[in-house]
Amino acid sequence: MNYRKRIRIGVIGGASANAECLETAFLVGELIAKNNAVLVCGGLSGVMNSASRGAKKEGGLTIGILPGNTREDANPYIDIPIATGMGYTRNALVVMNSDVLIAIDGQYGTLSEIAYGCVQGKRIIGIGTWDIKGVIRADSAEEAVDLALK
Amino acid sequence: MNYRKRIRIGVIGGASANAECLETAFLVGELIAKNNAVLVCGGLSGVMNSASRGAKKEGGLTIGILPGNTREDANPYIDIPIATGMGYTRNALVVMNSDVLIAIDGQYGTLSEIAYGCVQGKRIIGIGTWDIKGVIRADSAEEAVDLALK
Amino acid sequence: MNYRKRIRIGVIGGASANAECLETAFLVGELIAKNNAVLVCGGLSGVMNSASRGAKKEGGLTIGILPGNTREDANPYIDIPIATGMGYTRNALVVMNSDVLIAIDGQYGTLSEIAYGCVQGKRIIGIGTWDIKGVIRADSAEEAVDLALK
Amino acid sequence: MNYRKRIRIGVIGGASANAECLETAFLVGELIAKNNAVLVCGGLSGVMNSASRGAKKEGGLTIGILPGNTREDANPYIDIPIATGMGYTRNALVVMNSDVLIAIDGQYGTLSEIAYGCVQGKRIIGIGTWDIKGVIRADSAEEAVDLALK
Repeated sequence: MNYRKRIRIGVIGGASANAECLETAFLVGELIAKNNAVLVCGGLSGVMNSASRGAKKEGGLTIGILPGNTREDANPYIDIPIATGMGYTRNALVVMNSDVLIAIDGQYGTLSEIAYGCVQGKRIIGIGTWDIKGVIRADSAEEAVDLALK
Repeated sequence: MNYRKRIRIGVIGGASANAECLETAFLVGELIAKNNAVLVCGGLSGVMNSASRGAKKEGGLTIGILPGNTREDANPYIDIPIATGMGYTRNALVVMNSDVLIAIDGQYGTLSEIAYGCVQGKRIIGIGTWDIKGVIRADSAEEAVDLALK
Repeated sequence: MNYRKRIRIGVIGGASANAECLETAFLVGELIAKNNAVLVCGGLSGVMNSASRGAKKEGGLTIGILPGNTREDANPYIDIPIATGMGYTRNALVVMNSDVLIAIDGQYGTLSEIAYGCVQGKRIIGIGTWDIKGVIRADSAEEAVDLALK
Repeated sequence: MNYRKRIRIGVIGGASANAECLETAFLVGELIAKNNAVLVCGGLSGVMNSASRGAKKEGGLTIGILPGNTREDANPYIDIPIATGMGYTRNALVVMNSDVLIAIDGQYGTLSEIAYGCVQGKRIIGIGTWDIKGVIRADSAEEAVDLALK
C-alpha cells in the first residue's frame, strides 16, 4: 500500500462524452490500475467517472480533485475525494497533482488542463482531444497508457 | 471616477514577446483607456507590461492579478495590484475579473486563459495568438478593441 | 490618482453587526479616505458595507475581494470588486492585499483574517473584536485609524 | 480499502512544537489509525509529522494538503500528498477536507484553521491550543480522539 511512490496519471476529459470516449476512458482507467499507477482526475462525471470506474474494477487507487466544497460531489469510484471550493480554478490543481496526463475528448475545461500541463512541463498524451503543440497523440487506451508510463 | 460601471477588458499574452507584439499590446492599452474601459491583466512583464503602459499613457485604470503574494511584483503601470499567492492558478482569476478578453501572442499560460474564457462564456478577441474555436480573430489593435467593445 | 503608492487598510468584521459597530465601521471608512489610504475589505455586507460607504462619502477608493465568481455581489460602495470564486478561502487574500488591518466586531470569519494577519506579519488594530495576542486594542474609530497609519 | 466511507480527522498544530506536544500528536495519530479513521493534515513538519508517523505505525491512511506546488514537500509519513501551490491559503482546504479537527498546540496558522473549522461548522477538539469559544477541550490524546469520533 505504498501509494506515495506510485506514478500518478491524471485523466482529463469531458464531463459529458459519447459512448466511445467513455469506453476508452474506462479502458485507460483499467490499465492505469493494472500498472500500479494512481489515477488522478477532477472527480466528477463523464470521462472522469468512467476512468475511475475502470481503475476501481482493477483495484486501483483514485483521487478526485473536486470543484465544490464537499466531498459528496465525487463520483462513486473516487477513493480520495479532495474538496477545493474553487470551481473550475481547481483544474490547475488536477494537473499539479499528476505526473503525466492523458486527455480524452473534452471541451474547454480539458483545454485549460492541457495548457496547465504544458505550463508545468508535464507530459500529455491525447486521444481524440484538442490538437495542441506538445500533446502526444495516441490512438488507443493501450497506446496512451504505454506512452504515459514511458 | 466611477470605475465600477466601466467595462473591464482583460489583456492576456506572453510574459516575453517580440517588439511587434509589444507595440500591438501598447496600442491596445491606449485604446482601452481612450474608451474608458478598465484594463485587467496578470500584472507582470511582456504583453502585460506594454498594455498597462499604453493604458496609463492615456490616463486609464489598470488592475493586475498577480501570481505572487506581494504587490511589489506588479509592473510599474499597474494601479491596482492584487496579490493572490496562487502562482499560475491565478490565471483563472484574471479571466473571472474581465468582461471580455484580448489575447496577443502568448504561450501556454495564455492558452489556459483562453480556455478559461471559453469555460466562463467570455468573448475573446485574438491577435496573432492560439487558433482556438471560439476566439474571434482581429488583425490590429483597433479592430481588437472595437470587437471587444461591441 | 496614484493609488499604487497609497497605504492599504483592510477593514475586517462581521457581515452582520449591530448599529454601534456599523457606525464605527462607517467612521473608520471615512477616516481611511480622509487620510488618502485605500480601503480593502471582503466586499459584502455589515462592517464591510458600512466602512466602504464611509470611505466613498469622503471620495476614497475601495477594493472588495469577493468570495463569489461574479463582481455583482459587491456592495454598492466598492469601486474595484475582485471576484475569486473561492468562498471563505478568499479571506487569506483580503489580508494579503492589505498593509495593515482594522478588525471591528466579527465572528469566526474575522478570526480567520486576524490569524492570517498574524501569520503574514501584518499589524492588526482591533475594536470590540477577538482578544488575540498580537491585536492592538483601540477604543474608537479615530484611535484605530491613527494606530493603523503609524 | 474503502477509504471513502471512513471518517476524516484533521490534525492541526505547530510546524515546530516541543517534545510533549509531538508525543501527543504521535499518540493522536496512532489512535486515529486504530479507529480506522483517515488522518488529514497540512503535510509538513512538527505536529503534522508526528501525527502522520503515529498513524502510519498503525497502518492508517494519511492525506497531506501542502502549501507548495510539489508533492515532494510532504513529510515521509504522508501517503497521499496533495499540492496546492497556494501557501498558507491552503489552510482552508485542510479544514474543508476534514470531518472533525483535533488542534494540538500551534500558533497563528493553527488559529486560522480553528477559525475556518468554526466557519464551516466542523467540531474542533483542542489539546493545549488556542482557547477559542467553540473549541472542545481535551486533556489527552485518548480523550481527544474519543471526542472526535463521537
